[in-house]
Amino acid sequence: MVGAGQLARMTHQAAIDLGVELRVLAATSQDPAVLAGAVHQIGSPAELADLRRLAEGADVVTFDHERVPPELLARLEADGVNLAPPARAKLLAQDKAHQREHLAALGLPVPPFALARGLREIEEFGSLHGWPLVAKAPRGGYDGRGVTVVADAKVASAVLGELPDGVLLEPLLAIEQELAVLVARTRVGEQVAYPVAQTVQRDAMCREIRVPAPIPPQLADKARSLALEIAERSGAVGLLALELFVVDGLLLVNELALRPHNSGHFTIEGSCTSQFEQHLRAVLGWPLGVPDLVAPAVVTVNVVGPADGAQPAERVAEALAVPGVHLHLYGKEPAPGRKLGHVTACGAQIAEVAARAREAASILEGGSA
Amino acid sequence: MVGAGQLARMTHQAAIDLGVELRVLAATSQDPAVLAGAVHQIGSPAELADLRRLAEGADVVTFDHERVPPELLARLEADGVNLAPPARAKLLAQDKAHQREHLAALGLPVPPFALARGLREIEEFGSLHGWPLVAKAPRGGYDGRGVTVVADAKVASAVLGELPDGVLLEPLLAIEQELAVLVARTRVGEQVAYPVAQTVQRDAMCREIRVPAPIPPQLADKARSLALEIAERSGAVGLLALELFVVDGLLLVNELALRPHNSGHFTIEGSCTSQFEQHLRAVLGWPLGVPDLVAPAVVTVNVVGPADGAQPAERVAEALAVPGVHLHLYGKEPAPGRKLGHVTACGAQIAEVAARAREAASILEGGSA
Repeated sequence: MVGAGQLARMTHQAAIDLGVELRVLAATSQDPAVLAGAVHQIGSPAELADLRRLAEGADVVTFDHERVPPELLARLEADGVNLAPPARAKLLAQDKAHQREHLAALGLPVPPFALARGLREIEEFGSLHGWPLVAKAPRGGYDGRGVTVVADAKVASAVLGELPDGVLLEPLLAIEQELAVLVARTRVGEQVAYPVAQTVQRDAMCREIRVPAPIPPQLADKARSLALEIAERSGAVGLLALELFVVDGLLLVNELALRPHNSGHFTIEGSCTSQFEQHLRAVLGWPLGVPDLVAPAVVTVNVVGPADGAQPAERVAEALAVPGVHLHLYGKEPAPGRKLGHVTACGAQIAEVAARAREAASILEGGSA
Repeated sequence: MVGAGQLARMTHQAAIDLGVELRVLAATSQDPAVLAGAVHQIGSPAELADLRRLAEGADVVTFDHERVPPELLARLEADGVNLAPPARAKLLAQDKAHQREHLAALGLPVPPFALARGLREIEEFGSLHGWPLVAKAPRGGYDGRGVTVVADAKVASAVLGELPDGVLLEPLLAIEQELAVLVARTRVGEQVAYPVAQTVQRDAMCREIRVPAPIPPQLADKARSLALEIAERSGAVGLLALELFVVDGLLLVNELALRPHNSGHFTIEGSCTSQFEQHLRAVLGWPLGVPDLVAPAVVTVNVVGPADGAQPAERVAEALAVPGVHLHLYGKEPAPGRKLGHVTACGAQIAEVAARAREAASILEGGSA
């Protein structure tokens, strides 16, 4: 696995049970997966030699993040390395403009968008769809980083100064709800879709995942069908996480990732097969697992680094006093706004379950419960 | 943790989520917990220097097995090491004769027993309770090893030849069912008991654990009360696993272990709190977790090394085709009769759940499903 963050850490935990040896490419010996004991190699995802060494003797190479230069992935495939997802599919997750164009070309519902490289193009898009606009960095953004609300041409000019290669524009949508759907796909095309999750953002960062999403069954079916269709038509191998907006009661595709995803952490205790085990099954070409929920309501709350820079690991005992919560700490250095862990609770009813998960997460963040 | 077998391996998995660093004392770098990435020290549980080094800087020292000389545990405690369980309680699990005497002295229901050091004592016990008898090695036995059915005085003489320090005798009981109850206890006396499990033996080895046990609610309550009473009166800290016989509809205490236990693997997916997380909570003095089942029926089937010495890890893909099973491989060298892993399934109804878990375990063992 290229990368050794929390996704690699939790994949390592799943790999232990299946007798799979996960080797990770880590930036430092303090990366979350390394601290959890994954076999590791220190190196850079931007160095072909490091990627080649990682791939040596591996059945398959997969990813914890998007930050691998596409040209290096193509080189690995030319070497005969089994990449999951393949380089062409991975590129969809790496470049948001390419992703939008691909999805639109497939005839799928996406928000109005344009890739603008100059101020005039931004002004034209603003005149057409109204101000403010949303501008996104085509590459490298996450957790709201790389996303700017553009009030007028003056702000647009500043954004262009930082992203001279172009910005992905879309209207500021009246989003009623955000959803996420996880799909697993094997190379031979076996697929399963998980129940639809509602994702709740705060400060442009996903803070809470509620499953099942409070939407009509037909909309949930439609969301799962969309995710399955995209996985199939994109040639995904492994997990695909599709993020959707609900606007005017209709689904719009926001973006997708081709790897385990923050919105899927609920599956560890909440589904019959965790997303991490499912990813391993899918990339290894093994039979996929049952994605069904094991309880009527499952909620995951992210633990985000508090302003005081305190370490959630010091508050574990207090958080465990909340009944029926599952803590997952990532072993990361605390920093304000950094995802340091998550808490999942399962039960009969979303509101009660959410209250417990929030209480424990809030304690870990150093707040009062 | 002293020892680095599968119990340490699964404790390591639980420790990752809680941000706890588990350091294990391993015999070799191929021990199951070491292969899973636990920080380790190579050494022997019979060497005081190794135990002292393991304890250095640790908040608490706990155990994966019973094979630590009691006199060394006493030395560690004299050093001020926080042992969980304390040496005095641990001794109960290390010496079956001492355990029986302790339980009988507490007025708890135990089978008739005697510690015999000579042939005449065995013959007397035989005359009193009838032949055949069951003879057990007071120390070091597990999985049926160290247990002999003694048909007559001639066999008794052979057993005494191998166990000159004495044998624990009991009648060959008409056992209707075997049960196991897991209790967690903190040093300050907080306690929780898990639902009662039925354990099913084959070739004197536990092969299957079914939860809840098919017994009347009053008998289940009685079993949990017994386990809680024993934990409290023995000063256990951490997990205590109590094995019980049902004879003539009544409970008899068979034996107990003071550590996570094979009969508790069902808790990983089947309970709100796994026994491994619970053990960590208990030995660290943290609040105990909810022990309730998350499904009406949970079955664990042990994967035992087949006669052909084949490796279950090579049959994972085939076993994963069984829907809704959770595989746990221990990374051990296969050997006939060795526990190499287990499979758990959860669902609505014991027979259906057991069939799935057995099918996957049988595939891993190389049998036809």
